[in-house]
Amino acid sequence: MSAIDLSQLQGLDFDEIKLGQTAIFGKTVTEADILTFAAVSGDTNPVHLNEEFVRPTMFKTRIAHGMLSASFISTVIGTKLPGPGCIYVSQSLRFKAPVKIGDTVIARAEVTELNPEKRRLKLKTTCHCGETVVIDGEAEVFIPKRG
Amino acid sequence: MSAIDLSQLQGLDFDEIKLGQTAIFGKTVTEADILTFAAVSGDTNPVHLNEEFVRPTMFKTRIAHGMLSASFISTVIGTKLPGPGCIYVSQSLRFKAPVKIGDTVIARAEVTELNPEKRRLKLKTTCHCGETVVIDGEAEVFIPKRG
Amino acid sequence: MSAIDLSQLQGLDFDEIKLGQTAIFGKTVTEADILTFAAVSGDTNPVHLNEEFVRPTMFKTRIAHGMLSASFISTVIGTKLPGPGCIYVSQSLRFKAPVKIGDTVIARAEVTELNPEKRRLKLKTTCHCGETVVIDGEAEVFIPKRG
Amino acid sequence: MSAIDLSQLQGLDFDEIKLGQTAIFGKTVTEADILTFAAVSGDTNPVHLNEEFVRPTMFKTRIAHGMLSASFISTVIGTKLPGPGCIYVSQSLRFKAPVKIGDTVIARAEVTELNPEKRRLKLKTTCHCGETVVIDGEAEVFIPKRG
Repeated sequence: MSAIDLSQLQGLDFDEIKLGQTAIFGKTVTEADILTFAAVSGDTNPVHLNEEFVRPTMFKTRIAHGMLSASFISTVIGTKLPGPGCIYVSQSLRFKAPVKIGDTVIARAEVTELNPEKRRLKLKTTCHCGETVVIDGEAEVFIPKRG
Repeated sequence: MSAIDLSQLQGLDFDEIKLGQTAIFGKTVTEADILTFAAVSGDTNPVHLNEEFVRPTMFKTRIAHGMLSASFISTVIGTKLPGPGCIYVSQSLRFKAPVKIGDTVIARAEVTELNPEKRRLKLKTTCHCGETVVIDGEAEVFIPKRG
Repeated sequence: MSAIDLSQLQGLDFDEIKLGQTAIFGKTVTEADILTFAAVSGDTNPVHLNEEFVRPTMFKTRIAHGMLSASFISTVIGTKLPGPGCIYVSQSLRFKAPVKIGDTVIARAEVTELNPEKRRLKLKTTCHCGETVVIDGEAEVFIPKRG
Repeated sequence: MSAIDLSQLQGLDFDEIKLGQTAIFGKTVTEADILTFAAVSGDTNPVHLNEEFVRPTMFKTRIAHGMLSASFISTVIGTKLPGPGCIYVSQSLRFKAPVKIGDTVIARAEVTELNPEKRRLKLKTTCHCGETVVIDGEAEVFIPKRG
């Protein structure tokens, strides 16, 4: 047992969330991030790891795993909106453009639907690099009753 | 330029893929994997990192990020079926059960639809821990013409 | 017990392998790879880690561990030819040229000898950076009977 | 330029080495080491990563990559005997027994041949876990003239 009340780590309760509310998380994707993601996922696709393989392709240079950018959406949901204590029910992802080493990916979630009876909400989720949408999709989240 | 023909790294071409074809990837999820995924994603939700926070919750012990298991689906798509050279168009994910440290997650993809004109295919994608389905969903993939 | 048949993860059986068969794995060697290899091996030789130490030497800039490139041969053997299920019996390595940060190393194995009675095979194993052979040698592998 | 004389980082010069001289390096192999080695090598063979795959095999539990233990030999050569400044010419490896999580691997090199004209030496190289030899083989090393 901690001497400190850990429930203060919890995120937003259902009643604290409003339609249209947004949150973001962003990270500059480095070569080391791509290597680390390959490590943890086991996804050693040469498009991520082998500069000579990828040079003659449409990508020209190594690209990040789409699921790495997708993981930044999970970061918004799990740490900010609604944050800790929520249950991630579902996520849809459309991969629309590649992310290259040095690109800064901004993941954004916006509340689009609130179902107070079921304590469930939907969020429009997107990842941007500058003006370009690299991922869009939708998340559904459940917030258990506290107490 | 490599002295070796790197095109042999490419995965399956559209005509090599059959309805019902399957592939799997599996990994035992360790504490180090969860820490690494938190590091690369920025998802520092205490449900993944803080044993004291999670003890009184329904999970009882730290759980893996849902997107970590989802990344194993990307590994099947990107390294096996269809493998290198394909374009990941979309992925849906329903998170159905938690994954704990020491669980072995098996990600599986099965071809459910082939569209030869558009060179696109759909795959039913699931992650299992033993008998339990922890994720299900669907992937869509595009295979560019080669040569 | 998994609900999914994990034996499909196994690589090639002895009878599926032919003389002259080849497989490759390639990776662009990054600064992060060299640091990670130093970490896991404990090989903190300044030729890999200390740019000022190495500048006046014949190498001019930090080089990768020879065993890092050698590990890519193990990746070909263990994941492709013959792949999972085989037993790595021996490996010889001649280090012929240094690998620098940013070089793409292509490891290649070619079956040169098949001994069906002992279920053993030999492979010529090389690592290339472009036209340069950086490692050559030979591997011996055993494939246990299945079932 | 460093204010400190970095040549003191250099290992043994040829004349400082005697027949029969030995050095060792040892490390307890952890689950995290195996994951890290899989990451850096790309060797995602399930025998290293997937506890359920390996359970019905002769290994019973996940084993370390043979090349991880082999890298400890490189650590002895590159940091101790002869240490920094030497050129690794060749290494032979016979993999004789598996290494499991928690095993402590001791790599040992012993000088067996000195060729002062060519400034080359040979070393008998072994890795032990307790009484068991897990790798044996031979290294050849060249020590360039200093000055």
